[in-house]
Amino acid sequence: MTTSQFIIEAITVLGTAAFALAAVLAALDKKVDIFSVTVLGVITAVGGGTIRDCILDVTVFWSQDLSYIVIAISASLFGFFFFPLIQKKKINTLYLYIDTFAIAMFAIQGTDKAWEMGFGVPIAPIILGTITAVGGGVVRDTLLQRPSLLLTKELYAIPVALGCSIYSGFLLYAPELSQFGAILSAGLIVYLRHISIQKHVNVPDWAILQRKK
Amino acid sequence: MTTSQFIIEAITVLGTAAFALAAVLAALDKKVDIFSVTVLGVITAVGGGTIRDCILDVTVFWSQDLSYIVIAISASLFGFFFFPLIQKKKINTLYLYIDTFAIAMFAIQGTDKAWEMGFGVPIAPIILGTITAVGGGVVRDTLLQRPSLLLTKELYAIPVALGCSIYSGFLLYAPELSQFGAILSAGLIVYLRHISIQKHVNVPDWAILQRKK
Amino acid sequence: MTTSQFIIEAITVLGTAAFALAAVLAALDKKVDIFSVTVLGVITAVGGGTIRDCILDVTVFWSQDLSYIVIAISASLFGFFFFPLIQKKKINTLYLYIDTFAIAMFAIQGTDKAWEMGFGVPIAPIILGTITAVGGGVVRDTLLQRPSLLLTKELYAIPVALGCSIYSGFLLYAPELSQFGAILSAGLIVYLRHISIQKHVNVPDWAILQRKK
Repeated sequence: MTTSQFIIEAITVLGTAAFALAAVLAALDKKVDIFSVTVLGVITAVGGGTIRDCILDVTVFWSQDLSYIVIAISASLFGFFFFPLIQKKKINTLYLYIDTFAIAMFAIQGTDKAWEMGFGVPIAPIILGTITAVGGGVVRDTLLQRPSLLLTKELYAIPVALGCSIYSGFLLYAPELSQFGAILSAGLIVYLRHISIQKHVNVPDWAILQRKK
Repeated sequence: MTTSQFIIEAITVLGTAAFALAAVLAALDKKVDIFSVTVLGVITAVGGGTIRDCILDVTVFWSQDLSYIVIAISASLFGFFFFPLIQKKKINTLYLYIDTFAIAMFAIQGTDKAWEMGFGVPIAPIILGTITAVGGGVVRDTLLQRPSLLLTKELYAIPVALGCSIYSGFLLYAPELSQFGAILSAGLIVYLRHISIQKHVNVPDWAILQRKK
Repeated sequence: MTTSQFIIEAITVLGTAAFALAAVLAALDKKVDIFSVTVLGVITAVGGGTIRDCILDVTVFWSQDLSYIVIAISASLFGFFFFPLIQKKKINTLYLYIDTFAIAMFAIQGTDKAWEMGFGVPIAPIILGTITAVGGGVVRDTLLQRPSLLLTKELYAIPVALGCSIYSGFLLYAPELSQFGAILSAGLIVYLRHISIQKHVNVPDWAILQRKK
């Protein structure tokens, strides 16, 4: 295993776990049971990729590698019993950054998967990359009857869509630089999320739909 | 391009845009950002057809013709900046009629697509035609946490299902009259929506589920 | 038709109807119209299997046998006009047990279908069996904007998941006993639901996620 393979593997494992833990935090005020927490954890972790694969009309990724499911279930159960830990400031910050690296990587991977299939190039891969990264969380929030990220001002989906767009641009105009483009795009997603986490930067007011007074 | 091809093309373009604009109007009281408006616009415009194609197990239509996505994104952005325009009475009425022609045409096209594949003839095509026309709006409302058309008394989905049923009847009993049947069925959808828009005709009371007192 | 075929056929027909009737009861306080009741009935009855088949990437089951749809529509219409009947104590208890036999059978059938395709054995079939049995109800509740079974303390999905897990264990470790395993697993689901219905046993407190005081 090369270093870059190891890094990708590590982000995948930690990222899948972080996605599942996000479900525990999202469910905290809803008094759900341990089973529902696990279901929501699995949906958050693999839901986006599942929607992507259904739209791409290919075999769903986790049927070929059950480790995603096993990690998601384990992380959900861990989160159920130890969630006060995740809420501690330092650990929560660590958790937010793992989540950030995960959405960046899953977004680029999703874009890549659609692109290699020639699926609606160059626009559809951007949509599918974004769905891969944030789709599971949207389904989870809908099932929890809480406002999904589409209804909040947090900078979450926008960095993802921006990163996928830039990567898509590289694949279109400079395919020989695609590896560099992938790292740059993922880096941009991480950087924008970092600013949002550290400085609580939200979507600016002009970009919010509101009735004129 | 023949006249009828031109009409179909025009309804497709205008209808896709009208669907996306519907998302802007639906989101008006939710303070969503420009990105979410665009996502919801695209979901409204192509969501129904996407669910249909996933159920039919065929390649999703917009991956083969990105113009649907481009039109939906453009209309969403236009709607974001100029929504007070859409709310003006005359333009709103125009918008409602474009939407009406669009649901009529998408419903018939959806029924047709399923029928030609021999998918669950003669009942399943009615279901898939209806999903094509109204599925995107239902998903949008669910994501916006507002009551979807399934929970309102407006005559919207019923005309669509009725039109698809009649068209399905033509395909079954008089396939040689299918073109006439398509126009008649679409016309019926438009006519029922017209009555609903003009006279605010709702679903009658006997057809509403309610506990006996 | 052998006796066991007849039993399976009978549970399928009655179970599909029971699922559709569940939608009428779920919609009672929402003043939905007769069309929406029917849509929700069909979604409850065939929604779980539809999601399963989309994930499995196979032809949706009801396109090959429209009787599921016909039964679901008929039961929804029956429920719309005669719902006070279903609420009568004795008939409601009968209804609850038909629903119980139905979830047990659909869960085992769903597990089986995924297993025979070799889809993510041995864990994915458990997930797909559970989706088959309860997925339609979750979508219905989401569309009705009411808390789905993921948010209630009722013992409903847990018995299903447990039954699918045990059946999956039989298929893995003792495939020659699979028929016995199917009956045992379905029996366990029915038994746990029976306890829940009769004694109002809920999910125990330790298994509920709650903030420490």
